[in-house]
Amino acid sequence: MDERDEDRTGAADDLFQRTADLARWLVERDRLSPVTPPPSPEQLRAELDLSLPAEPRQEGEWFDALREVVERTPSTSSHRFYNQLFAGRIPAATVAEALTALLNSSMYTYKAAGVHTLIERRVIARLCELVGYRSGGGTFAPGGSMANLVALIVARNEAFPRVRDEGGAAAAGAVVYVSDQGHYSIRKNAGMLGIGRANVRAVRSDHEGRMIPSALSEAIAADREAGRTPLCVVATAGTTVMGAFDPIDEIATLCERERIWLHVDAAFGGSFLLHPELRQRLRGVERSNSVAWCAHKMMGVPMPCSAILVRYAERSSSGSGASPGGEDPNLLRRHFNEAADYLFQQDEADLNLGHESLQCGRRNDAFKLWAAWQALGDRGWRERLERQRHLALTAVARIEREPALELLHRPESLCVCFTVSGVASDELCAELSRRGLESVGYGLVRGAKAVRLVTSNPEVTEGEIERFFDDLLAVADDLRRRGGAAAATTESVAATRE
Amino acid sequence: MDERDEDRTGAADDLFQRTADLARWLVERDRLSPVTPPPSPEQLRAELDLSLPAEPRQEGEWFDALREVVERTPSTSSHRFYNQLFAGRIPAATVAEALTALLNSSMYTYKAAGVHTLIERRVIARLCELVGYRSGGGTFAPGGSMANLVALIVARNEAFPRVRDEGGAAAAGAVVYVSDQGHYSIRKNAGMLGIGRANVRAVRSDHEGRMIPSALSEAIAADREAGRTPLCVVATAGTTVMGAFDPIDEIATLCERERIWLHVDAAFGGSFLLHPELRQRLRGVERSNSVAWCAHKMMGVPMPCSAILVRYAERSSSGSGASPGGEDPNLLRRHFNEAADYLFQQDEADLNLGHESLQCGRRNDAFKLWAAWQALGDRGWRERLERQRHLALTAVARIEREPALELLHRPESLCVCFTVSGVASDELCAELSRRGLESVGYGLVRGAKAVRLVTSNPEVTEGEIERFFDDLLAVADDLRRRGGAAAATTESVAATRE
Repeated sequence: MDERDEDRTGAADDLFQRTADLARWLVERDRLSPVTPPPSPEQLRAELDLSLPAEPRQEGEWFDALREVVERTPSTSSHRFYNQLFAGRIPAATVAEALTALLNSSMYTYKAAGVHTLIERRVIARLCELVGYRSGGGTFAPGGSMANLVALIVARNEAFPRVRDEGGAAAAGAVVYVSDQGHYSIRKNAGMLGIGRANVRAVRSDHEGRMIPSALSEAIAADREAGRTPLCVVATAGTTVMGAFDPIDEIATLCERERIWLHVDAAFGGSFLLHPELRQRLRGVERSNSVAWCAHKMMGVPMPCSAILVRYAERSSSGSGASPGGEDPNLLRRHFNEAADYLFQQDEADLNLGHESLQCGRRNDAFKLWAAWQALGDRGWRERLERQRHLALTAVARIEREPALELLHRPESLCVCFTVSGVASDELCAELSRRGLESVGYGLVRGAKAVRLVTSNPEVTEGEIERFFDDLLAVADDLRRRGGAAAATTESVAATRE
Repeated sequence: MDERDEDRTGAADDLFQRTADLARWLVERDRLSPVTPPPSPEQLRAELDLSLPAEPRQEGEWFDALREVVERTPSTSSHRFYNQLFAGRIPAATVAEALTALLNSSMYTYKAAGVHTLIERRVIARLCELVGYRSGGGTFAPGGSMANLVALIVARNEAFPRVRDEGGAAAAGAVVYVSDQGHYSIRKNAGMLGIGRANVRAVRSDHEGRMIPSALSEAIAADREAGRTPLCVVATAGTTVMGAFDPIDEIATLCERERIWLHVDAAFGGSFLLHPELRQRLRGVERSNSVAWCAHKMMGVPMPCSAILVRYAERSSSGSGASPGGEDPNLLRRHFNEAADYLFQQDEADLNLGHESLQCGRRNDAFKLWAAWQALGDRGWRERLERQRHLALTAVARIEREPALELLHRPESLCVCFTVSGVASDELCAELSRRGLESVGYGLVRGAKAVRLVTSNPEVTEGEIERFFDDLLAVADDLRRRGGAAAATTESVAATRE
């Protein structure tokens, strides 16, 4: 090792030490401190130099710049963060994600990814098993919306075999169904894929936010009547606002009868499959054709970690999995494979995952889930879900005790929606955030704004849930008083005008 | 702090320390050691327990499992890795990526992402400035293929305003043009978007791999003649195999005259815009409508780091940027925006980046590039490109000196394609990899397989480039001898048969 090498090693030592120290500080802050009130963009611009310099900066200098950004980043792991469907972190998953950055593997070929290919295959196989697919496969997509995109492409291409080569005219009249509580990515994706947003039907849901099968059946009949072709039904397992589960089994019966692709958007609720009782909410999921499942939501691994699972035709007893036309039984490979000689070079054809994925270059999103699984095991996932569910029920109990609060549904998963008497939910959420007390959002429940509390972080204590409501009620009181004052002002203005 | 808290902090300390130690070991190994020969899948399955356990494992135990995976991962940062368009790593970028995992921010709203929103905006603005867009914007997409996808969606929707709502029949007859050297994602994306793969024209390229403008012009005329609608021309800046640059300026003139969207796939070559002379290869890029640019290739930041930049209509002197129909001048927002009340809640509408992106939840891919820029500055990027280019020219000089080697083109960027007399390029690459000597791939040049050396890692020394060729020539000699023996065997078999 020459002198320059020693210098370099010393610098790397120091750099990793600093990073470890910063990470430790961050984890401590997230655990102990309240939500950092998000500074205004103007404030950030005044406090930080975010410019891209012309000249290099020394390590100490750029590291400080990174530290300043880290310190000002809104915390999604604080015990006061209930704002998104994800929250908190699992150390093993976070460490694996940091190592993924260092390894910088690309998943397209076995030559480049090696062992990571086997890890992805293993994780996908386990998820397929949990869904109940006897034969199936899958890949990781960069987020739940993209997982839904992959499903919609496969569904479309299977129903309209000429569309991939000839274009959207070959799929004219195709219609997609999703409940009025479904995720906006279905509509967005339909627009991107040439299906057309106007050809996505928002099927009515019931009081608890679940798709009404008879409404779906009517919508399909009406489209058939009009000469259109029902392409895909998207059932949602864990809707975004109410966390509701569509009745998959009933919908599957309908789809089988009508020969329509059934995709289950289980981006949020898929994780319930890890729990022997909670998985009943997804009864019938094994009859679906595809499932989107985000482990970065309930399962606490860094974002994104979104699997798209596809059921393949089961092999016949002759052992051949090929369809009559001799087509590839691997539906992802059938619809995503492209020739690229410069890339796919070695014999491990079945392990060159690029043949089956949306992307070309792709980081390993399975490694962090695999790592979390090592640390938690099936049992850990089960206990985690019980804990998350317990926190949701703790919130429900508190809401039912408080006269000022009204619970809007019987929560099926981790979303608890309620209103506060005399206070607008959006104003309440904004004020809680402004004061840096609790981070929570609102959603529309049956057309009205409701506070949506999501108990995704199992590290949160019962006491912290109670504190959330104490904070919320105190701020609501303030707003009501101020609102009264504002109302008085308005009245006096009105009086002046009269 | 109670006792449990102290325990926890101690565990976190230890975990971060272990991770830092493993990272340090990995960086050292990548720097000093040769390419790890990729073990066979069977070997890996025999050596490693990759199963997902039913019961939790202790921290020491799962950390060891992670370590074993890390140790067996093919190195993309070794000084013997020339196999992909990316190689090596920039410490500041790697550290930022690890911090991104810890922060776990999602980019959709200012409320959730805060300062990261400003960082992405700042990076995008600088990239637009480098391209030369007077008015424009952009977003990060999960990889170059997806950046091209975004461009194709915007181009399609601008040309066929009804397609997003009504579906692909409203874009019937649309045609896309890309050179026969362009990336396979164009064809793949056209298949996904309902344009149709058969409607992608592979325009002829010249001896050096550059699109021939007259061939493009003829292809467009033929399609117009047949009643089709040319939708988009994709010019490639840095082709995948030869690293060639299409003549953007000439193509832009054609596109302006024909009123066709010009997208520049600069996934690989965009980084040349950071260098005052090399940027001439992209002359005319400011006349394009969109540019895809991957900073995870030449710029050494962890994958993915792919920007898609879109030129917007310049504001008129009246100050209004809206188009006559009152449409949003921000083309990404115009074509990707969807209503989602539960998500987009605060007033920072212009800073809620989810309105402009392909994905919903999205990690910050701009932070690592921003961090690298802090460490390198404009000057560092310039010097890096000079160094990478110097290594490519070092390789060219060696090839020209060696009678056994034939250079197939005048390399315009970092790809150097050549053949070895008497040895098949694919066999040679496979054997180099099998022996764990050098990791390099092959590509098709004018229909024949050629070794493709990519000098993306500027940390590589001239001596290491020379060693690459020493290894290659020695292995080629061995193969020729063995091939001779094999040929002799074949001859004797033939003789026996006669």
